[in-house]
Amino acid sequence: MTQRAVCVIGAGLIGGSLLRAAEQAGRTVWGASTAADAADAHADGFDVTTDTDAALRRAAETDALVVLAVPLPALPDVLRRVDAVAPACRLTDTVSVKVAVADTVERYAPRARFVGGHPMAGTAESGWAAGKADLFAGAAWVVASDDGLDLDVWADVAELAWACGARVVPAATDEHDIAVARVSHLPHLLAAVLAAVGAAGDDDLPLALAASSFADGTRVAGTRPELVLAMCEGNRDALLGAVDDALGRLGAMRGALASTGGLAATVRAGHAGRQRWAAARDPQGVQVKRRSSLSALRDIGRRGDAVVGWKD
Amino acid sequence: MTQRAVCVIGAGLIGGSLLRAAEQAGRTVWGASTAADAADAHADGFDVTTDTDAALRRAAETDALVVLAVPLPALPDVLRRVDAVAPACRLTDTVSVKVAVADTVERYAPRARFVGGHPMAGTAESGWAAGKADLFAGAAWVVASDDGLDLDVWADVAELAWACGARVVPAATDEHDIAVARVSHLPHLLAAVLAAVGAAGDDDLPLALAASSFADGTRVAGTRPELVLAMCEGNRDALLGAVDDALGRLGAMRGALASTGGLAATVRAGHAGRQRWAAARDPQGVQVKRRSSLSALRDIGRRGDAVVGWKD
Repeated sequence: MTQRAVCVIGAGLIGGSLLRAAEQAGRTVWGASTAADAADAHADGFDVTTDTDAALRRAAETDALVVLAVPLPALPDVLRRVDAVAPACRLTDTVSVKVAVADTVERYAPRARFVGGHPMAGTAESGWAAGKADLFAGAAWVVASDDGLDLDVWADVAELAWACGARVVPAATDEHDIAVARVSHLPHLLAAVLAAVGAAGDDDLPLALAASSFADGTRVAGTRPELVLAMCEGNRDALLGAVDDALGRLGAMRGALASTGGLAATVRAGHAGRQRWAAARDPQGVQVKRRSSLSALRDIGRRGDAVVGWKD
Repeated sequence: MTQRAVCVIGAGLIGGSLLRAAEQAGRTVWGASTAADAADAHADGFDVTTDTDAALRRAAETDALVVLAVPLPALPDVLRRVDAVAPACRLTDTVSVKVAVADTVERYAPRARFVGGHPMAGTAESGWAAGKADLFAGAAWVVASDDGLDLDVWADVAELAWACGARVVPAATDEHDIAVARVSHLPHLLAAVLAAVGAAGDDDLPLALAASSFADGTRVAGTRPELVLAMCEGNRDALLGAVDDALGRLGAMRGALASTGGLAATVRAGHAGRQRWAAARDPQGVQVKRRSSLSALRDIGRRGDAVVGWKD
């Protein structure tokens, strides 16, 4: 494994955790961030500045891996600096949607050696102070694996994920967005609908009778609305497909309930889906040769497995 | 408080827990059940027989409170025995829907002094062996509070609920069914839809990326389908209203996402609903005078509160 240096732009929850985890794994790390997070990181002994250009220049000089850990709306500005200061750098990101990020990189920093990433970890909190070195331990870390991308940078991103304790799930950019629409964004919308229906009555009797099924089903409706909106609205096209699937199933169920009164098809399909999820939950983990074909890598993600290291 | 004796028909999870809890509270208890549960209960030292008539006859002779803790489809047969052996007994039940039960009692045992009940506790398991004395501790126990019902039996049911450690939520029969459709049955159907959407793809990538929002949102989809079907299908009319509300909200959200891309209305309404639930979660608990008006009792449930004892 290389011990490639890591430059992190954005030292919030994700970027701040990444800086800590990579340093703990022995990497040279530095970064840039907004004033508050930079100050907190600096106070904790990390080389984090507010001077994005300086951080990127050092990355260009040392052939470091640059990680963009900023929200989607902040990307264009940062990418303009990448194109100006470190145009051909090794580049990845941590944003929860991948098509929109790839399009933005193509537009603002087309010369960068970019391989998208999505570490699937987080908490309800944000900022440097909420970060921790083991945030990614045991988590899935999606690494974009579309044909044509740079295999050397793919290896850099995978090795960073492993160094942080995560397993690598290879996925095509568009397949990632469709998958997270179904299993990550749709749950937030259905939780919102359920919470609204439960609280819709004229009185509080329903809420007084709500027990664990309601508590679990609405838990993520307690997330700060801005976070949910940023996540879901950035994945609009894929989310529409997931919502339409849910609407179709709910409508068919409504029809069956009204006509025959039967809910068996819905309930059994849901039970089977949950069982399938439970079975897919603990991927075995495979090792792959360096410079494996991207098509072979994508197949590993499609069968629900993950890459945990190099063969040999 | 009286120490009225309690005769429980059906010694499964709920009935078996009730027998244990009521005995622990000092009541004289006995019952009848199917062979397997009766044998298990007998082995644990409880007076539970397979002879329903004998158990009911003893209830009639001692003016005991009869609790029907059998599934909805088993009610007609049991109620025929009530009408034959203990026609004017003090009668309640533990079934999770209340309109269908009231109709069935009216039809098969019209002379019984019936006040419906619904202790809102349970586990994924069933049978005598799964029961425990503290199953109802801290739980809501709905007691039907429609105009015209027998206030003496209302007091009997409330005192039994308190003896088991529960708080009493008074509710009109139809309002109960509408409330549980929204906060108990709809969560199971939305969980089923979400689990089916997550598992619907051609491959396992979505399931490999599913994290806590999917795990929580689909948890009750892991319940045995027969239990969910029995619960939901017995509450068809009220459930249709809840499903239509959910469909309307999901459809409006779909329209907003497709047109403006905005999800703020949905997400904010969900967040507000969850906050309202969190605030309503720990009812203060009130004491009422014996023989309070049923209308005043219903108002306590409607404002999300519960009755925890007698005043004076």
